[in-house]
Amino acid sequence: MGNLLELLPVDGIRLAAGSAGIYGKPRDDLALFEICDGAGTSAVFTRNRFCAAPVTVARDHLKRGPARYFLVNAGNANAGTGARGVDDAMQVCAALADRAGCAPEAVLPFSTGVIGEYLPVDNICRALPGLVGNLADDAWPDCARAVMTTDTRPKGCSVQFAVGEETVTVTGIAKGAGMIKPDMATMLAFVATDAAVSQGALDRMLKTAADQSFNRICVDGDTSTNDACVLIATGKRAAAYEQLEAIVTEVCIELAREIVRDAEGATKFVTIRVENAGSEAECAAIAEAVSTSPLVKTALFASDPNWGRILAAVGRSGTGELDINRVSLYLDDVCVVRNGTRAGDYTEEKGTAAMQKDEIGIRIDLNKGNASACYWTCDLSHDYVTINAEYRT
Amino acid sequence: MGNLLELLPVDGIRLAAGSAGIYGKPRDDLALFEICDGAGTSAVFTRNRFCAAPVTVARDHLKRGPARYFLVNAGNANAGTGARGVDDAMQVCAALADRAGCAPEAVLPFSTGVIGEYLPVDNICRALPGLVGNLADDAWPDCARAVMTTDTRPKGCSVQFAVGEETVTVTGIAKGAGMIKPDMATMLAFVATDAAVSQGALDRMLKTAADQSFNRICVDGDTSTNDACVLIATGKRAAAYEQLEAIVTEVCIELAREIVRDAEGATKFVTIRVENAGSEAECAAIAEAVSTSPLVKTALFASDPNWGRILAAVGRSGTGELDINRVSLYLDDVCVVRNGTRAGDYTEEKGTAAMQKDEIGIRIDLNKGNASACYWTCDLSHDYVTINAEYRT
Repeated sequence: MGNLLELLPVDGIRLAAGSAGIYGKPRDDLALFEICDGAGTSAVFTRNRFCAAPVTVARDHLKRGPARYFLVNAGNANAGTGARGVDDAMQVCAALADRAGCAPEAVLPFSTGVIGEYLPVDNICRALPGLVGNLADDAWPDCARAVMTTDTRPKGCSVQFAVGEETVTVTGIAKGAGMIKPDMATMLAFVATDAAVSQGALDRMLKTAADQSFNRICVDGDTSTNDACVLIATGKRAAAYEQLEAIVTEVCIELAREIVRDAEGATKFVTIRVENAGSEAECAAIAEAVSTSPLVKTALFASDPNWGRILAAVGRSGTGELDINRVSLYLDDVCVVRNGTRAGDYTEEKGTAAMQKDEIGIRIDLNKGNASACYWTCDLSHDYVTINAEYRT
Repeated sequence: MGNLLELLPVDGIRLAAGSAGIYGKPRDDLALFEICDGAGTSAVFTRNRFCAAPVTVARDHLKRGPARYFLVNAGNANAGTGARGVDDAMQVCAALADRAGCAPEAVLPFSTGVIGEYLPVDNICRALPGLVGNLADDAWPDCARAVMTTDTRPKGCSVQFAVGEETVTVTGIAKGAGMIKPDMATMLAFVATDAAVSQGALDRMLKTAADQSFNRICVDGDTSTNDACVLIATGKRAAAYEQLEAIVTEVCIELAREIVRDAEGATKFVTIRVENAGSEAECAAIAEAVSTSPLVKTALFASDPNWGRILAAVGRSGTGELDINRVSLYLDDVCVVRNGTRAGDYTEEKGTAAMQKDEIGIRIDLNKGNASACYWTCDLSHDYVTINAEYRT
């Protein structure tokens, strides 16, 4: 297995960051990925029916042949922009294709930012020559910064592992801090490996990794119009599928946890573990109810061991039969509820001590079946309200 | 049809408010209802599986015969209290039955307040003689105050209407300001009429009224362990079913709207109207997605016409087929989105003007079928976080 390192180049990928001035202040807001010939790309997109224009275009382009470039912009989601939004996204792809010498369908567009504004096409096109001219294999950190919106810090992760004499690399970057819920593809993430993986295996690997990472985090229960998660395999190295899948999953989990750690206004990092449930779907339903409950989240913010709110959220999650008299609840190692009622040895002092930490574990044992799973979430603070009330002002 | 008046006595109902000192400060926290012989009672309870002990006991008692007394306490939910909680609730019922001279099964207990603390049985029992001694037909306002928890004001509504020479009265009180979502029975509400209604008709009437009122409001998407809504018909007057159902529904809608108006920390009262949907279930799913979205709710708080967040919530609501290119969105009378994209005549100034009002209408036209329905919700403010972070401290 690998170690978490600085962001490492991936053989076959070059990147560049630049600015189209979308934020009206000096910061990068564009990231360009160049992918070598022979690479495979797999992607999952938001299931939100109001998907943005770039999602429509990227989905379509991906069907038509291998992707050679990803063009990502922050600051403008190009969502809710109707037919003109699609035209705008295609225009940007065509301009890049023209400059880089590929087919427009080989360019996938990604956008993130404010909904309902038209894409500043001319500004983006003017920045393309600079981007293409600056392509380099070590620009992962610059690109991680360029795709940030309300993120307070860039998110990235690299793992390397040895296969015989060779070293295989997996590097990923992500953006996302709000509009996050445990549902397919909830932010932007770009993960690349220099290993060789067939298209079918790459699709399977991405689904497995996303299900165990980005689909298990929740900031506010909202899903975005623009979410996408992409996995690239450049085919330069050989690696066993199982080992590579484990590493890609590890990278995705790390990126997902970084998103939660950077969640808008969050002061707590919370791991919810649902144990001994009847199915993984039951684990997910319970974790979602607990992690989206404003009452649980405000109690977490207050470091208040208000376990009644957690039980109430479990009780309304509404999957299968639930015998409340078998449910136990732990805050870190403190048993708060045993068999549906307050544990005899529980004291408010113990609960408060557990809740005052920055990292809190909530363990819900249904004592019913043998499915277990981990999810990650955060609290709901005054700063969340401030950030989202003032986002556009 | 009737007029909204002060809270009027209902022939056949006497009430009393009193204090068991549950709050540790001088305020009433008990309400007692006495119901005449021959009256009918219908009730709907929370669907939360972690229902509180009094819900278990009240459900059971209601099956065993006509209810003669309701004993309600605020400040303690008697939830998450296991077998002892059920014993406690039954003990209080037995003590009241003893004092009032009825069977214990004729007493229905209701509790609301903090979860996970045992009921102060002795304190409540000590207050019973005073309650029984003070029963009067005009104590509706006192009882409306006694059942308050985080409510900032009592909630009640009366309507009278003439049937021939006679006057029929419907009076209701309710408590609730948080842990509210559009799902069966989301707070405590007690509604009574002096009309005669058969048990089957009473059950039907309550379901109809609750579906159009309490099941269409959302403060934070949480449901409580203790929710109940009760309808009493004392049988003293004659009334046509349809007319009475309309009035009872009107009273329930008024109580439901009062709950939203008093929602924890709310600064906006928002009516969501979903129009031309494929079914009422689709209306409900869309209204729920919009009204529980923290991003929509913080935008409402900020008076920010961030319509992209509303569209994103509609898009993730996940019912049936949704052609986003047919969806229109209005803020009050301002058309913001037409056929899935920003309306040509929309300006940010118009949207901001609509959002700056205290009462905001959000109208979502799916342009698809012929189902339409109204829902009520509020914004998510700093005060919501403060109230719920500090509830127990």
